[in-house]
Amino acid sequence: MLRSALQAGTAERHSVFELFGRRLPDGRRYGVVAGVGRALRALRQFRFDEESLTFLTEGGIVDARTADYLDGFRFGGQIWGYPEGEIYFPGSPLMVVEGTFAECCVLETLLLSIYNHDSAIASAASRMTLAADGRPCVEMGSRRTHELAAVAAARAAYVAGFDATSNLEAGRRYGVPTTGTAAHSFTLLHHDEREAFTAQLAALGESTTLLVDTYDVEKAVRTGVELTGGRLGAVRLDSGDLAALAVRVRELLDSLGATGTRIVVTSDLDENAIAALSGAPVNSYGVGTALVTGSGHPTSGFVYKLVARADSDEPGAPLVAVAKKSQDKVSVGGRKWALRRLDADGVAEAEVIGVGETPVDDGNDRPLLVPLVRDGEIVGEEPLEAARRRHAAARAELPLEARKLSKGEPVIPTLYTGATAPTTNPYASQGASS
Amino acid sequence: MLRSALQAGTAERHSVFELFGRRLPDGRRYGVVAGVGRALRALRQFRFDEESLTFLTEGGIVDARTADYLDGFRFGGQIWGYPEGEIYFPGSPLMVVEGTFAECCVLETLLLSIYNHDSAIASAASRMTLAADGRPCVEMGSRRTHELAAVAAARAAYVAGFDATSNLEAGRRYGVPTTGTAAHSFTLLHHDEREAFTAQLAALGESTTLLVDTYDVEKAVRTGVELTGGRLGAVRLDSGDLAALAVRVRELLDSLGATGTRIVVTSDLDENAIAALSGAPVNSYGVGTALVTGSGHPTSGFVYKLVARADSDEPGAPLVAVAKKSQDKVSVGGRKWALRRLDADGVAEAEVIGVGETPVDDGNDRPLLVPLVRDGEIVGEEPLEAARRRHAAARAELPLEARKLSKGEPVIPTLYTGATAPTTNPYASQGASS
Repeated sequence: MLRSALQAGTAERHSVFELFGRRLPDGRRYGVVAGVGRALRALRQFRFDEESLTFLTEGGIVDARTADYLDGFRFGGQIWGYPEGEIYFPGSPLMVVEGTFAECCVLETLLLSIYNHDSAIASAASRMTLAADGRPCVEMGSRRTHELAAVAAARAAYVAGFDATSNLEAGRRYGVPTTGTAAHSFTLLHHDEREAFTAQLAALGESTTLLVDTYDVEKAVRTGVELTGGRLGAVRLDSGDLAALAVRVRELLDSLGATGTRIVVTSDLDENAIAALSGAPVNSYGVGTALVTGSGHPTSGFVYKLVARADSDEPGAPLVAVAKKSQDKVSVGGRKWALRRLDADGVAEAEVIGVGETPVDDGNDRPLLVPLVRDGEIVGEEPLEAARRRHAAARAELPLEARKLSKGEPVIPTLYTGATAPTTNPYASQGASS
Repeated sequence: MLRSALQAGTAERHSVFELFGRRLPDGRRYGVVAGVGRALRALRQFRFDEESLTFLTEGGIVDARTADYLDGFRFGGQIWGYPEGEIYFPGSPLMVVEGTFAECCVLETLLLSIYNHDSAIASAASRMTLAADGRPCVEMGSRRTHELAAVAAARAAYVAGFDATSNLEAGRRYGVPTTGTAAHSFTLLHHDEREAFTAQLAALGESTTLLVDTYDVEKAVRTGVELTGGRLGAVRLDSGDLAALAVRVRELLDSLGATGTRIVVTSDLDENAIAALSGAPVNSYGVGTALVTGSGHPTSGFVYKLVARADSDEPGAPLVAVAKKSQDKVSVGGRKWALRRLDADGVAEAEVIGVGETPVDDGNDRPLLVPLVRDGEIVGEEPLEAARRRHAAARAELPLEARKLSKGEPVIPTLYTGATAPTTNPYASQGASS
C-alpha cells in the first residue's frame, strides 16, 4: 500500500484512522483498554534499521523510493486515545490517529497487535479480580504463552487489578511486583518433603509459600507447620477439589496453631473457578493459562480503519468522511469523539459516540479521548500505577450487572449522535475482521 | 527454587526433566510439534546480563550466590526431543532435558513458553492446510496477536503447511515466504476505486491482488479486468457469503476473459470455513485470527516435569524415577523413549512410550527422539524447510481419521510399555496444569 501510494502521489494525503472493536467478545459485558503505554514505547522505538531495509529492498518487497521513505521514518502526526485501564464498549474509538496516509498506514499492525493482545488479557483479568472480590490475584501464566507475550500479559493483568506476577522480566521492565512459588520438581529433587521444605525455609525464610500437594497434603501441612513453629507464611494447593481441600487445610492449620498461615490456590483457575471458591477459606489465587489466553477470548478483534481523509492534496483541504460500504462489514465514517455518560449517582449510563466537534460537557459526561502523541511527540506516557487506579475507578462506575460472569450484553449501550451518525448499532451481526 | 537448591547443596544434583502434554486440546486428533528451532536459538542466546542481575539482586529476589550462578549461566547438559514438524500425542515426551537440577530448572519457562505457543499455532495450522486440500494458505493474523508472537506464529504456520505470510519480519528472521494485500483503507484513500486500482497496478504490476469488496464487488471486478486487459493476478473477497460470491465472481471473471485471474478469500476463516469452501471456485485462503489464536486452543497445555534424579550427590550415582503422587495430577516417573509404530502399509498405529532403554527397532517403528543439545552444544538446528517437509510426511502417515475436523479422540493410542509403565492412560480425566 505504501509503495503504491508513494508512486501515485497519494501517500502524503491527510488521513484519520481509528482503532476500535465492532463488538465485545461474545458474552462479555465490558472490555478493558490495555497496551497504551506499550504502544507509545514501541512508537518511540519504531525505526527501520539497515538490515530490515536491505531485506525489504533485496527481496523486491519495496522499491527504492519506499525504502527511502522508511529509512527516515518517524511518526509526526497526532494520536488521541482512551487512556490505559479505561473501560470500552462496542464502537468505542480507542485510538484516533491523524497524519499522512503513509505514516498512519505504517503503524497499523504494530498498534493493532499491542492493543488486541493486551486488552484481551486485561479484559479477562478484570473479570478475575472482580470475582476474587478483594483477595489478591497473582499472574502465573508465563509458561503457557509466547515468551514475550507473557511479559506483556503480566503488565496487562496488573492494570486490571492483579497484585503481582511470577514473571520477573515484567518486574524489571514495567515495575510489576513479583512473587514466586516452588514447583513439584523442587520437592521431588529432594529425598523427602521434609528435606525440600527445610531447604526452602533456610533460603527464603518462614514467610515463604510451601507447595503441599506433591505426596500427601495433610502430612505436608503438618511438616511445614512443625518446621516453622507455626509461623509458615503460606501453603499452596495445586490439585484436587480446591474448595473442600481449602476447608480441611484451614482447619488443620488452625488446629496446629498456624492461624496466620495463608492458603494460596492454583490449578487451572479462571474467573468462574475463582467465584466458585468465594466461600472457601482461600487467601489468594494464582492464575495461569486462563489469564494469558484471555479466558476464552485471546484477542480483542480490534480493527484499524481509515475514517476520514483530505478531499484533495491541496494544503488545508477539508477532510471528508470515508467508509467501506459493501456487504456485511460496514464502518462508520468520520472522526469520532466519545464520552461516558454518567447518571446523577455517577453510574455509567451510556457510551456516547459522535462525529464532529466534541459537545460541551454537561457535567455528567466524562470525555474519553486524551492526547497521546502531539506532532510526533509522545505526551501520553504515565506510570503503570495510574492505569491501574484508572481501571479500578472506571470499573466502579459501571452498573452492578458488570459484575456478572455469565454471558450477557454490554452493560451500557453505545449511542451514536450527530448529523451523520447511524441510529442503531451499525455493527450488529457482522464478522469481526478487516 | 534455584536459590534454595544452591543453599541446600542440591542444585548440582543430576536431573532429567521432560516436556509433554497430558492430553491433546479437547477434541483434537493429533498435535504438531513446533518451536524446536526457536527454542534452540533462544537457548544459544540465553544469558543473564548485568542489568537483569542488578534487578534480581537489588530487589532481593536472588542472593549473591544465586546471582553468581546466573552470571555465568550456560546450559551444559543434554537435550533430546521430537524434531520440529513431527506429530505428537498425549504423553509424548517432546523434550528430554538432562543436566544439573539448576540448569534444567532455569530453562523451564523459556522452553514451555516457546513450545506451548508455537505448537498450538502449528496444530491449528495443520488442520487448516488439511482442509484446504492443496490450495495455498497464507498467514495474515499478525494484527490479532502480540507483536512478537505474530512472528513466531507465521513461522509455526509455515512448518504446518502454510505457503506464505504477510508478516515481513518472519520473512527476514526465518525466511518464511512473504506476500501481501491491500486493505480497504487504500481504496478509501483515493477518490474512487478506479483511481486506487490504477495506483496499485502502476506500482505492483498486473499480477497483484485487488481487494474488490469496498463498494460493489461486480463493478470492482469489471474495473480490475478492464485496467489489466484481463491479465489481473487475483481478486480478494473479504466479506459476505464467500462461497456464493466466489461462484459469481468466477463466472464474471471468465465471462470477461480473465480466466487466469485467481480468487483469494479472507474474512475470519478457520479450518471449518475453509472446508466449507472446498466446493467453491477459490484459489487460495488468507487466514488471520483463527490461526494466531490456535483456532480455539491458544496454548498446548504442555508441562515440564522432573522425572528422574540422582539418588545422591556422589559422582555416578544412579538415577531414580520420581513423580508427583497426590490427587489428580499423576505423572509417569522415569526417563522415556518414544516410537511411532507403523503397520505394514506405513500407517501409524500407536505412539509407544517406555521407560528405560530404547528397544531395538523391529523395522516398523520410527524412533521419535533425536539429539538437540549435546554437552551444551546445539546439534539439532536445521533449515525450516526440513521441519515443513517432516510435518507433511508425518501427517501423511496418520490414519485417514486424522483428516476429520470434528471433535474426536487422538487418532492413534498412546501405549506405555516397560516394567514401570502404567497399563492405561495415566492422564485420563486430569486437569492440564502444573
